[in-house]
Amino acid sequence: MPNNYPVSTPTFENVQKAYLKIRNKVHRTPVIKSKKVNEHAGGELFFKCENFQKVGAFKFRGATHAVGELPDEKAKSGVATHSSGNHAQAVALAAKQRGIPAHIVMPENAPKVKVNAVRDYGAHITFCESTQQARESTLETIVEETGATFIHPYDNPDIIMGQGSAAIELLEDQPELDIILAPVGGGGLISGTAIATSGFSPNTKVIGTEPEVANDAYLSFKTGERHPVQSTDTVADGLRTSLSELTFSCIQKHVDEMVTVTEQEIIDAMRFIWERMKIIIEPSSAVPAAAVFNGKINIENKKAGIIISGGNMDLEFLPWQ
Amino acid sequence: MPNNYPVSTPTFENVQKAYLKIRNKVHRTPVIKSKKVNEHAGGELFFKCENFQKVGAFKFRGATHAVGELPDEKAKSGVATHSSGNHAQAVALAAKQRGIPAHIVMPENAPKVKVNAVRDYGAHITFCESTQQARESTLETIVEETGATFIHPYDNPDIIMGQGSAAIELLEDQPELDIILAPVGGGGLISGTAIATSGFSPNTKVIGTEPEVANDAYLSFKTGERHPVQSTDTVADGLRTSLSELTFSCIQKHVDEMVTVTEQEIIDAMRFIWERMKIIIEPSSAVPAAAVFNGKINIENKKAGIIISGGNMDLEFLPWQ
Repeated sequence: MPNNYPVSTPTFENVQKAYLKIRNKVHRTPVIKSKKVNEHAGGELFFKCENFQKVGAFKFRGATHAVGELPDEKAKSGVATHSSGNHAQAVALAAKQRGIPAHIVMPENAPKVKVNAVRDYGAHITFCESTQQARESTLETIVEETGATFIHPYDNPDIIMGQGSAAIELLEDQPELDIILAPVGGGGLISGTAIATSGFSPNTKVIGTEPEVANDAYLSFKTGERHPVQSTDTVADGLRTSLSELTFSCIQKHVDEMVTVTEQEIIDAMRFIWERMKIIIEPSSAVPAAAVFNGKINIENKKAGIIISGGNMDLEFLPWQ
Repeated sequence: MPNNYPVSTPTFENVQKAYLKIRNKVHRTPVIKSKKVNEHAGGELFFKCENFQKVGAFKFRGATHAVGELPDEKAKSGVATHSSGNHAQAVALAAKQRGIPAHIVMPENAPKVKVNAVRDYGAHITFCESTQQARESTLETIVEETGATFIHPYDNPDIIMGQGSAAIELLEDQPELDIILAPVGGGGLISGTAIATSGFSPNTKVIGTEPEVANDAYLSFKTGERHPVQSTDTVADGLRTSLSELTFSCIQKHVDEMVTVTEQEIIDAMRFIWERMKIIIEPSSAVPAAAVFNGKINIENKKAGIIISGGNMDLEFLPWQ
């Protein structure tokens, strides 16, 4: 499905407006800290807990904004996307809240718990083979048949603006942050975060964090040329996608640094946070903390905010077992 | 070790005073709710999250109060207890914060993670065989040698008064509760909770909840005679102990109802809360929710508070795996 957006990136004003539009529809999630975690990290960490967001992930912010922005005439034909993850649930719930149909294409081997969650929000589910091509062609057919609007998980300025609202809330609650960290998959969260921070708190550095085995954003950032992701076997299942031209442009403009971590570092950081903070975060959410815990980002005498992206995972299979 | 306390039970005023003494030393933990959980429960639930308390459990409240109440002369010889669980960590940290020694007797097969936690708080650890008799005789020797004061995990009015502070905070944050639920092991938490509630909110019913396979408190409550616990193999490892005369008296005076749940109901409730609320609670903490989810307590059109007792558990072995 072609990307019809020009590579003009959203502005801080766009993110602010998006925030005002969605603030009564999303949870204002808590910002929490832990003495034990700070001792381990060697500085002060503030966790913006989007694992407590509706649908269990920040994705609901972007989806709520993108679905809300559709003009009535277009909205009544519904929205569509392909995803087996948090974006599917986010679009399904956002559509339900607007009272319009949602069409979700899911691979036939998608975990039952995720299928049920999407179904519970009243979305129409179409199953397809578990290949990128099958997903895209199935989606295309649905869009043609129904007139639904495709809501891309990150290659969409409205999505990026919505995701930026988490950073605005974080900076409202904790104004004097030296650094903000977020994980990087397709780049929607880091783009929104960086744009929000550039306007709200220009002296705060924004650092993207990525699994070493899915370091497309890191390579793109370092070389100035967009690299597709090579491997998709990271434990951080939310970070297996590649940047789009749009998110790459946002990152180039507003992100200060990119850092990578190993799989073991992700698993150890995730377990540490579960054990010490008693919150369930998904592997992708542990990536920024892993970078801090392993000295890849020095936060000595500093205050750093971390966007905890979500808490959805299969509790049958814990990565340290 | 003999119990030297008379069976005169603490009063609401005692709990209030305890709360004022410890309030700056303990975390004021959040009270959280979840739409999804409420839909499942058929009423409104408010979770008082003592899993976010220092040492990861409500036990720190009682220990802080009991350690704080010792006169200086007595305190300087330190405190002692035997425990492989949350009480050990609670006494160790409370002693550290008062600047006095703590002597903890632990079974030689205690999980390393718990031993390390106690050691991190600077306590002296003595290992013994894993029998009740070995624990008690080892503790007795230490008390004789050091002059330390034995801090019993629940058969101690100062402990009960401290535990009651969680219910005071819960009722301050959520004044119009119809019911308050807590798990019952040795009875310290339910005693403090019931005393606090009787004074703060006399129309709120207090219900104790217990595993069916460790139903000593249930039987004692129903028959009016104290029954020792028969089985100790419940997944709710914090609830394997029996009531003392003291806690039984508190329960008889102030608890309105006792309810039991099966092992499978505990496991299912725990998993449901992990999945939907994204918080880590230990199996004992899932017992009250299990009673609600399985219709053993009807909360239709009601508001019920649940004390989440703690979040410490071995993440290697999840009970549904």
